[in-house]
Amino acid sequence: MTEPDTSNPDHDQPVRVRLTLGYDGTGYAGWAKQPGQPTIQGEIETALQTMDASIGSVTCAGRTDAGVHARTQVLHVDVPLPLWRKRDEDGFVRQLNQLTGDQIHFRDAMLAPPGFDARFSALSRGYSYRLCDDPHGWDPLFRGWVTRHRRELDVGQMAIAAQYLLGEHDFAAFCRPREGASTIRRILWVDVHRDGGRRVVVSLEADAFCHSMVRSVVGALVAIGEDRKDPEWITELLAAAKRDSAVTVMHPEGLVLETVIYPPDELVAQRAEETRQLRG
Amino acid sequence: MTEPDTSNPDHDQPVRVRLTLGYDGTGYAGWAKQPGQPTIQGEIETALQTMDASIGSVTCAGRTDAGVHARTQVLHVDVPLPLWRKRDEDGFVRQLNQLTGDQIHFRDAMLAPPGFDARFSALSRGYSYRLCDDPHGWDPLFRGWVTRHRRELDVGQMAIAAQYLLGEHDFAAFCRPREGASTIRRILWVDVHRDGGRRVVVSLEADAFCHSMVRSVVGALVAIGEDRKDPEWITELLAAAKRDSAVTVMHPEGLVLETVIYPPDELVAQRAEETRQLRG
Repeated sequence: MTEPDTSNPDHDQPVRVRLTLGYDGTGYAGWAKQPGQPTIQGEIETALQTMDASIGSVTCAGRTDAGVHARTQVLHVDVPLPLWRKRDEDGFVRQLNQLTGDQIHFRDAMLAPPGFDARFSALSRGYSYRLCDDPHGWDPLFRGWVTRHRRELDVGQMAIAAQYLLGEHDFAAFCRPREGASTIRRILWVDVHRDGGRRVVVSLEADAFCHSMVRSVVGALVAIGEDRKDPEWITELLAAAKRDSAVTVMHPEGLVLETVIYPPDELVAQRAEETRQLRG
Repeated sequence: MTEPDTSNPDHDQPVRVRLTLGYDGTGYAGWAKQPGQPTIQGEIETALQTMDASIGSVTCAGRTDAGVHARTQVLHVDVPLPLWRKRDEDGFVRQLNQLTGDQIHFRDAMLAPPGFDARFSALSRGYSYRLCDDPHGWDPLFRGWVTRHRRELDVGQMAIAAQYLLGEHDFAAFCRPREGASTIRRILWVDVHRDGGRRVVVSLEADAFCHSMVRSVVGALVAIGEDRKDPEWITELLAAAKRDSAVTVMHPEGLVLETVIYPPDELVAQRAEETRQLRG
């Protein structure tokens, strides 16, 4: 991308805006636009095009599946400079929030640093998955983003197993294969704990995730938590590096994109270049 | 109520069952049954009558208004002994959960101790009210039970004001008046704090609450949090003991019935008698 010169108001280059938002993915067919289906991307692009018909597509940090939520999603979009200059940042966010439904909420907007790409500049993504395995502790107020689980889970065993995921591995056992795409990822952080005694929360941070990877990892941890498998099963799955039918893909409603981490502004262009080469 | 002799399976007296449940009040016209409207009570009684047509009405600890939620609500209902004996307690709860929608969830059922009345035996009720006053911190996943507030709140001032509520007072300033009913209540516990920096949580426990009392108290605290009133305004409202148009009744969605406290089993009958005399 050629960097716009925002010091010159007559410049007809668009400017790149970085937006932070959260959403309740219930009822959406996922992030990615699909004809005839309600999607997060579709709703946001429609809102932006209401603000200015020349606005094209938006790019996000983590493309979430149907029914998956985000507490922190980041996107970039190129908008005409006059539109951006017409408002302060809060005004831009306010109008976007008025134009999208109440399941999507924009928190802030800022001019992106040079070379910023919401997807390729990101250093890592963090997801959480929540399950309730206690029928006495099920809370209807959380039903939209906690998955109900019928069998009791041994969180200690799950936590032991989760440690084997740390570092760089081929996650083919946990991914829907995609022609020519690498399934090697680096897990930076993992945690399994009980939240208030009632909900089991699995948190994972990685440089990036393959399709359905978090839900498959949680599915494997659940098999261990139910004592159907030993924690060491994770190492076998990683070593085999191929899809295993014993790994369940968990339901989407328990999954939330929680964080996206970027390098300091002066490094976002370099990071984007590196990632493009790695994933390209 | 005459106590059933549960040792005799042929006894045709019904037995009193105590049930604990939670619900998402969104879209309901409140707890209390109303013709042609979806209500929590109506849905539960329909479910119970599907189990046994002879079952009558249910009585709850705290009648919640339209759109108000419960994390812990307690009710009693008299059911035929054969129905109760046919299942274990978990089986009774399971069937009830199958017969009610996913906004209502029963946690447990047990034979009530002699003289138990869900309403009159209760020692106290605890409510919480949640507001989000930070537009950057608004989370769509909580939108069903957190009220959005457009102005920043000073939680310190609200907490100072809340202390004036403690103890026995005439809460007429905070109640919709009802012919012949006392508006004297005893506040046992109060707390105002920020939850994770983003949400303001007001918690109140009292022997009982008048209609719209929690939402009016929170409305007064919000006026203080916005610096439109001083904390001492609470003492003036309590002393005046009449409805004040400066007290706003907050929206229902932020309100959750969190706890109901009962005395030990051997004292529930006595407590019910005392409350009936006090409120009767």
